[in-house]
Amino acid sequence: MDENFLLHNSTAEKLYHHYAKDMPIIDYHCHLQPEEIYENKQYNNIAEVWLYGDHYKWRAMRSNGVDEAYITGNASDYEKFLAWAKTVPMLIGNPLYNWTHLELQRFFDIYDCLNEETAPAIWEKVNAKLNSGDFGARDFIHKSNVKVVCTTDDPVDDLTYHHKLQEEKDFPVKVVPGFRPDKALAINGDGFPSYVKALEKASDMEIDSYQAYLKALQSRVAFFHSVGGRVSDHAIDTMMYAKATEEEAAQFFADARKGNKVSLEDEKKFRSHTLTFLGKEYAKRGWVMQYHINALRNNNTRMFEKLGPDTGYDAMNDEDIAKPLVSLLDSLDKADALPKTVLYSLNPNDNETIASIIGSFQGGGIPGKIQFGTAWWFNDTKSGMLAQMQALANMGVFSQFIGMLTDSRSFLSYPRHEYFRRLVCSFIGEWVENGEVPDDIDFLGKIVQGIAYENAKAYFDFGLE
Amino acid sequence: MDENFLLHNSTAEKLYHHYAKDMPIIDYHCHLQPEEIYENKQYNNIAEVWLYGDHYKWRAMRSNGVDEAYITGNASDYEKFLAWAKTVPMLIGNPLYNWTHLELQRFFDIYDCLNEETAPAIWEKVNAKLNSGDFGARDFIHKSNVKVVCTTDDPVDDLTYHHKLQEEKDFPVKVVPGFRPDKALAINGDGFPSYVKALEKASDMEIDSYQAYLKALQSRVAFFHSVGGRVSDHAIDTMMYAKATEEEAAQFFADARKGNKVSLEDEKKFRSHTLTFLGKEYAKRGWVMQYHINALRNNNTRMFEKLGPDTGYDAMNDEDIAKPLVSLLDSLDKADALPKTVLYSLNPNDNETIASIIGSFQGGGIPGKIQFGTAWWFNDTKSGMLAQMQALANMGVFSQFIGMLTDSRSFLSYPRHEYFRRLVCSFIGEWVENGEVPDDIDFLGKIVQGIAYENAKAYFDFGLE
Amino acid sequence: MDENFLLHNSTAEKLYHHYAKDMPIIDYHCHLQPEEIYENKQYNNIAEVWLYGDHYKWRAMRSNGVDEAYITGNASDYEKFLAWAKTVPMLIGNPLYNWTHLELQRFFDIYDCLNEETAPAIWEKVNAKLNSGDFGARDFIHKSNVKVVCTTDDPVDDLTYHHKLQEEKDFPVKVVPGFRPDKALAINGDGFPSYVKALEKASDMEIDSYQAYLKALQSRVAFFHSVGGRVSDHAIDTMMYAKATEEEAAQFFADARKGNKVSLEDEKKFRSHTLTFLGKEYAKRGWVMQYHINALRNNNTRMFEKLGPDTGYDAMNDEDIAKPLVSLLDSLDKADALPKTVLYSLNPNDNETIASIIGSFQGGGIPGKIQFGTAWWFNDTKSGMLAQMQALANMGVFSQFIGMLTDSRSFLSYPRHEYFRRLVCSFIGEWVENGEVPDDIDFLGKIVQGIAYENAKAYFDFGLE
Repeated sequence: MDENFLLHNSTAEKLYHHYAKDMPIIDYHCHLQPEEIYENKQYNNIAEVWLYGDHYKWRAMRSNGVDEAYITGNASDYEKFLAWAKTVPMLIGNPLYNWTHLELQRFFDIYDCLNEETAPAIWEKVNAKLNSGDFGARDFIHKSNVKVVCTTDDPVDDLTYHHKLQEEKDFPVKVVPGFRPDKALAINGDGFPSYVKALEKASDMEIDSYQAYLKALQSRVAFFHSVGGRVSDHAIDTMMYAKATEEEAAQFFADARKGNKVSLEDEKKFRSHTLTFLGKEYAKRGWVMQYHINALRNNNTRMFEKLGPDTGYDAMNDEDIAKPLVSLLDSLDKADALPKTVLYSLNPNDNETIASIIGSFQGGGIPGKIQFGTAWWFNDTKSGMLAQMQALANMGVFSQFIGMLTDSRSFLSYPRHEYFRRLVCSFIGEWVENGEVPDDIDFLGKIVQGIAYENAKAYFDFGLE
Repeated sequence: MDENFLLHNSTAEKLYHHYAKDMPIIDYHCHLQPEEIYENKQYNNIAEVWLYGDHYKWRAMRSNGVDEAYITGNASDYEKFLAWAKTVPMLIGNPLYNWTHLELQRFFDIYDCLNEETAPAIWEKVNAKLNSGDFGARDFIHKSNVKVVCTTDDPVDDLTYHHKLQEEKDFPVKVVPGFRPDKALAINGDGFPSYVKALEKASDMEIDSYQAYLKALQSRVAFFHSVGGRVSDHAIDTMMYAKATEEEAAQFFADARKGNKVSLEDEKKFRSHTLTFLGKEYAKRGWVMQYHINALRNNNTRMFEKLGPDTGYDAMNDEDIAKPLVSLLDSLDKADALPKTVLYSLNPNDNETIASIIGSFQGGGIPGKIQFGTAWWFNDTKSGMLAQMQALANMGVFSQFIGMLTDSRSFLSYPRHEYFRRLVCSFIGEWVENGEVPDDIDFLGKIVQGIAYENAKAYFDFGLE
Repeated sequence: MDENFLLHNSTAEKLYHHYAKDMPIIDYHCHLQPEEIYENKQYNNIAEVWLYGDHYKWRAMRSNGVDEAYITGNASDYEKFLAWAKTVPMLIGNPLYNWTHLELQRFFDIYDCLNEETAPAIWEKVNAKLNSGDFGARDFIHKSNVKVVCTTDDPVDDLTYHHKLQEEKDFPVKVVPGFRPDKALAINGDGFPSYVKALEKASDMEIDSYQAYLKALQSRVAFFHSVGGRVSDHAIDTMMYAKATEEEAAQFFADARKGNKVSLEDEKKFRSHTLTFLGKEYAKRGWVMQYHINALRNNNTRMFEKLGPDTGYDAMNDEDIAKPLVSLLDSLDKADALPKTVLYSLNPNDNETIASIIGSFQGGGIPGKIQFGTAWWFNDTKSGMLAQMQALANMGVFSQFIGMLTDSRSFLSYPRHEYFRRLVCSFIGEWVENGEVPDDIDFLGKIVQGIAYENAKAYFDFGLE
């Protein structure tokens, strides 16, 4: 993992070092806490940074035979770090192996491999840095040359910390909210009735009907917009579409609000109608709409009851997406109200399907209006990223790709952008080496800079100069 | 893109230049208009050749942010050509990039890359050639060393131009019809009743029952056969099978003929029964039956209403195919009436499924009786073709593969055969380089010539000497 | 195919020759006949060894246009061998090509390629060896350095030959039974009532209820355990899960036992309930449970009626697996009774789905408790194996992989382990060459030895020293 890590040919080296490397980052989808940015969160040790809440690492440790005590249990931070250090060498071939060492290199100037032997010294060295005062949340953001952080927020969130951050004169990074109304669509979720109440409170509007519900959501879109929000995001674990009248949707809403469950078919109708309404709101404001499709969550009931969600017990769903996805997008496009849209599926079998579907909804003179989002979560690997890029290049205009995001809960995840950019350079470099594309390094450099930064800058209405 | 374009090792170079390159072409599935061949259609400018009706290019332009005016709108031919020229450099990684330059090289001796700067000179140079009298439809066919052109025709077509072409003494290329009865199976299509009337007229038979309907279709198969037709083709957007009695099928036919819609289940039964009937007719005559599976068409209603079908708004479907496909093939095989069959799916996830299914129906002493058709449409890319070939080689007998077709509406698409052949040579060459296959260039050259031409010649009963 | 066959870089060469090559084999899933091992089956000629019952080769011959007479028909052994010899050169790119030559090299010291010309001499040479007395079933096992052979056996089997083999002092290979109760779950199978009777007899228990049925199965698990059985195996052609009460399952059992068919939904419930019961039994005893998912069998009715099952007419199924598979595993895990489990799908589209699902059920301090099983059947190819390994490495801990098995009916299939090991070495070697993993050959050698042998040794409770 030297300076030419992942750069498999000389064109790739030139493209990365001269064009990609120094581009800023627009992290348009992540799970960072704005409060932690505002408070410039500090860390006592590397276990806090790495192992509190990183369910990717937890999964890897479990798979490697580490006892749960050393993962989410009562073991000390140092013991947990040691358990992780022992696991790392076994992770060759897994992106965690490379991420771990990239993070050690880029943030802490540590070029050793982490393992049982090196663990004690690395523990000391990193902790000393973490306690030096220069390694808070904001420092990681600055060092990574990040221009925009777009978080993931519920419509009922008051966005206090986004507000506060925008008033900070000495913190020029834009921290903007991402509108994620999953709970507003989960009509059969146990918390739906209380969610409606929370929305009443947040919007300061009485919700006595489905129409009022939509108005309240609309007001929250407007509120997010006023705080710089330009992006929405939806978890669509099962892709579905069923045409519904407003009367039907209103009926299902009324039922669910009382705490009743509706049938799966009725849930589909409610979701379809509400998603279409929201899509139009996004389109009106020039927002970008994101769909995250085909995740299968909380699969391990026993552990869910112990640890809750986002603890490493998710997987891919593998249901068909083509017909319902096309119907949903078409329902918006028919009304000439399809917003800019980014489609991600957790199942890489959907790569080609999505790459072909986006082509059916491009238009309006917007370069790459409908985007095939970068490899997500379990696919955030070398081969996963290359597969996504290959599908996009085959069927779409790769040059207009808006590129990478971290999707992370950790302030140390920005080197994933580096990882991605190196792969982009290798991917393009290989075309040159193979004689499929002319060796015009300045032109290719611009393409690379587009994918690294400029395309996202033009695509998202974040107000960068 | 020099003479060793896509030839990634020295075995590949030898195989291509000494064995593959000069083989003739049997284009056993395309969408060329026989009338245009008969009339030796001429072109005023390159926009007419390239941009009238090529929805692949339209999609790419839309994705690149080109306004619809410059795609299907009122802009002049030169403006449209310029919009395309600006788009091309952005298409690196997309097969359109390489096809564009292959077509410029092979037909017009132009070795510049097309872009905004080179566009004016290329416009002049190509147009001059197009107006020289040597660049009509037949010239492109001749220059490409094509022996057979198999078009795509409706059963009700009178095949006038196929007839006329066969009477032309100075045009030795066989232009034969392909039997594509999609409308005859679309029992729920709005045009079904009028289609039945058109079939009555074409067959000169009264259709007063389902049996009469089948007889009329049978007579059209016989008519196509008499004009050299040896191939049928079916669009099966959703793979389905449901066993039906003739009485059931007859009932659904009677309903639909009156303009009524039948249920999805009944449609499946009608289709299954009718497809089985047709399959037997094909088998009787030694025809080859083609199934094109898992396309999802006309996805953008707004644009469909403006531009109609085949305008760049299609995508892949992703429905399961294994069980119904097996049932359909088995229903024919049980009657010992399974014709030679070529299976294509638009979704590359079906590659391995199809490659395994064909193995269940091989036999009768016919090499490669059931073929896994070459990468289709969105998969007509370097990686798409390699994926299809890999699946076939893994599970079947790659040496018996009948290879490439253009599937194109353009007379300039023949270099796709060159593109394919280069990949075949690289694919095989890599085995040799890796020591997986002996370096017996004459033997491998024969395999390559088989895949390029000889296998198709033996497989299709086109009467080539 | 020299000594560095499939070893594409120098790290791979070192790993294979110094670490992988000499490791013993644990063949934890195969279809060898224990009787043939016990009797040290002898062969008269190579057709007996290769062509009696090897439906992989039959498929290839059919695909190549060989008449059925030379495959399963009346042709002489020599004629059949010749038909195979003519087919082999056409199989370049298919694993049969490499397996054939590996078997000739490793067992018979023949380094020629098999083809029409070399066939007569190879026929003589191999037959001479086969008749020398040193080429019986046990000899192939010994020469392949096999420590454990785990066969595939029905619960009603009396395991006579396993018993006998264990009493043989001069045969130190462990031959253990694998518990495969497919018929016990096939409630709608025509033979179900008589299967229940056979189980009564085998277990010497009266089966007058579903509870008694489960008890009888339980007693067979215990019996297999007493004969060294530590592995079960289930063909789950269609992955399914439906929660059922014991009363429901009992009702369906009672119906089926009388020879009645139950609905598909009821069959799902019966299967789910019974699978869950069996899973708990396996867990109790520390067994490993295997699920073989998404096969589609006996697709060609005409040939099935002539030749029966396992004659080359199977294919992949392509149905969704994620939700039902997760539900089934969760139903066991909720009861804290999920055994060590190996998941295989015949459809490589499931690779990533499975690799993500196993991560949701790891735990208990067992390294790689839930395994993504190695590429199966149609995927038992270079690219198929690499795809399985890539998915596992991306999402799991590749270092904990239990590796290869033969799944074969032939005593000559052990070189498939060599083929696999060479690929493992190349796969890891490429990481080193790319600078993604440090060049620590001893550490990597241990990983390779783990995947070749040590991981399986630790995972399966076969009692190896």
